[in-house]
Amino acid sequence: MCELLGMSANTPTDLCFSFTGLTQRGGNTGPHSDGWGVAFFEGKGLRTFHDSSASANSQVASLVQTLPIKSETAICHIRQANVGDICLANTHPFVRELWGRNWVFAHNGQIANFKGRVDVFEPIGDTDSERIFCDIMNHIRARLTRNASLEDLCALLTELAQGYAKQGVFNCLLSNGDWLFTFCSTKLACITRRAPFGNAQLKDADVTVDFAGETTPKDVVSIIATEPLTTDEAWHIYQPGEWKLWQKGEVLMEGAVKKSV
Amino acid sequence: MCELLGMSANTPTDLCFSFTGLTQRGGNTGPHSDGWGVAFFEGKGLRTFHDSSASANSQVASLVQTLPIKSETAICHIRQANVGDICLANTHPFVRELWGRNWVFAHNGQIANFKGRVDVFEPIGDTDSERIFCDIMNHIRARLTRNASLEDLCALLTELAQGYAKQGVFNCLLSNGDWLFTFCSTKLACITRRAPFGNAQLKDADVTVDFAGETTPKDVVSIIATEPLTTDEAWHIYQPGEWKLWQKGEVLMEGAVKKSV
Repeated sequence: MCELLGMSANTPTDLCFSFTGLTQRGGNTGPHSDGWGVAFFEGKGLRTFHDSSASANSQVASLVQTLPIKSETAICHIRQANVGDICLANTHPFVRELWGRNWVFAHNGQIANFKGRVDVFEPIGDTDSERIFCDIMNHIRARLTRNASLEDLCALLTELAQGYAKQGVFNCLLSNGDWLFTFCSTKLACITRRAPFGNAQLKDADVTVDFAGETTPKDVVSIIATEPLTTDEAWHIYQPGEWKLWQKGEVLMEGAVKKSV
Repeated sequence: MCELLGMSANTPTDLCFSFTGLTQRGGNTGPHSDGWGVAFFEGKGLRTFHDSSASANSQVASLVQTLPIKSETAICHIRQANVGDICLANTHPFVRELWGRNWVFAHNGQIANFKGRVDVFEPIGDTDSERIFCDIMNHIRARLTRNASLEDLCALLTELAQGYAKQGVFNCLLSNGDWLFTFCSTKLACITRRAPFGNAQLKDADVTVDFAGETTPKDVVSIIATEPLTTDEAWHIYQPGEWKLWQKGEVLMEGAVKKSV
């Protein structure tokens, strides 16, 4: 299995604190040592870092921990391989271009022998996760238009997610830089930080931060992760079937689908 | 204008030496300070680094100069903006997925008001370079199959390149990880290093390397760049209209098209 980390913020914000916590779980406080990746949106542009080595020992991860890359939307993933070799092509997050935007996807879970719709988007590596991503993108391209409403988008994404969750474990983060869609089949948590900001202590490293010193009173920053990353904050735990569409740090739409087997 | 750097090798090789030379031209020995990017193939996987700041002062570029990322094919670009804002979305190299592979493109030159074929692949940023790349990819997808021969591929690419060169300046590097296509409309140079290996001195930094200490006798490594990167080696200077398809460090096919205006 793997672990996910996403961020949605109303102002460009760095992910250093949460990223430092998550990457410890890649070979240090957790077993997810089969690669890691992160994608930071900057407007429609995207900055990605991928590595097939353990994040806890990765030189690139060490740099990203200290680089103040400011983003409104970011998606990060650390991998514990179950399907597919340990190699760069199998390292999340995956990226495709559709309608002149970057679409980014990371998955936690497994769907054995998944076969998706055969169409324009094809997997490059050999993970079930990338096959699912291509299936999602092919459905979006075939069934929506570039000007589709977010209601229509969420209706399609939750329909697909419900189908995937029936076939296996499907926790995911998906973004086109404008919004961040999150779906929980088994495990996902989130927290929204806003004024008055306080302190937080990482669960996986001896690191604390005083958010008041790093923010303005108008900032709203939400973090979505497989498991809570801090020990002294109240995280919301997603229920199985629960989904949320985030934009600028706030929940724009949310709901739940039945996870019938 | 911009500067290009490509590598084709028969064994995974790091680009540190050439990358160190090129990145000096991004704000130090050259004016190309409007961003930089590099893509390293690892099998079908891809490791990319992009930054919209000057490569000579970039923390990420400093890291990449020292990271021994081993690759058989790499494409690098430093930008001096003429069309399009200075932002991440406008930073080469550009990447798209087709037929289950990553395709990577970098361009040196300018084609004013370029309009390409409208189809599946669309630009994300607002450079003429990315519009040209999407045009190439749309032509490849429409006119070739995934099993097309390299002869057919080169016939299409040189036809397109000739058309672009008639409209403006078009020096380019294009790769799908299996081969590296290079086209010179005005300026491009290359060198192939093989046993017996010798020393080389960078033109843009006080750095020398003894390739004999870093290679085996079987290694073949070719570097393609806008201008020679070393002072004490014999680079081949491409003629206008000259193209070469590289694979595993060797020229697999080559030719020249007439650059008629």
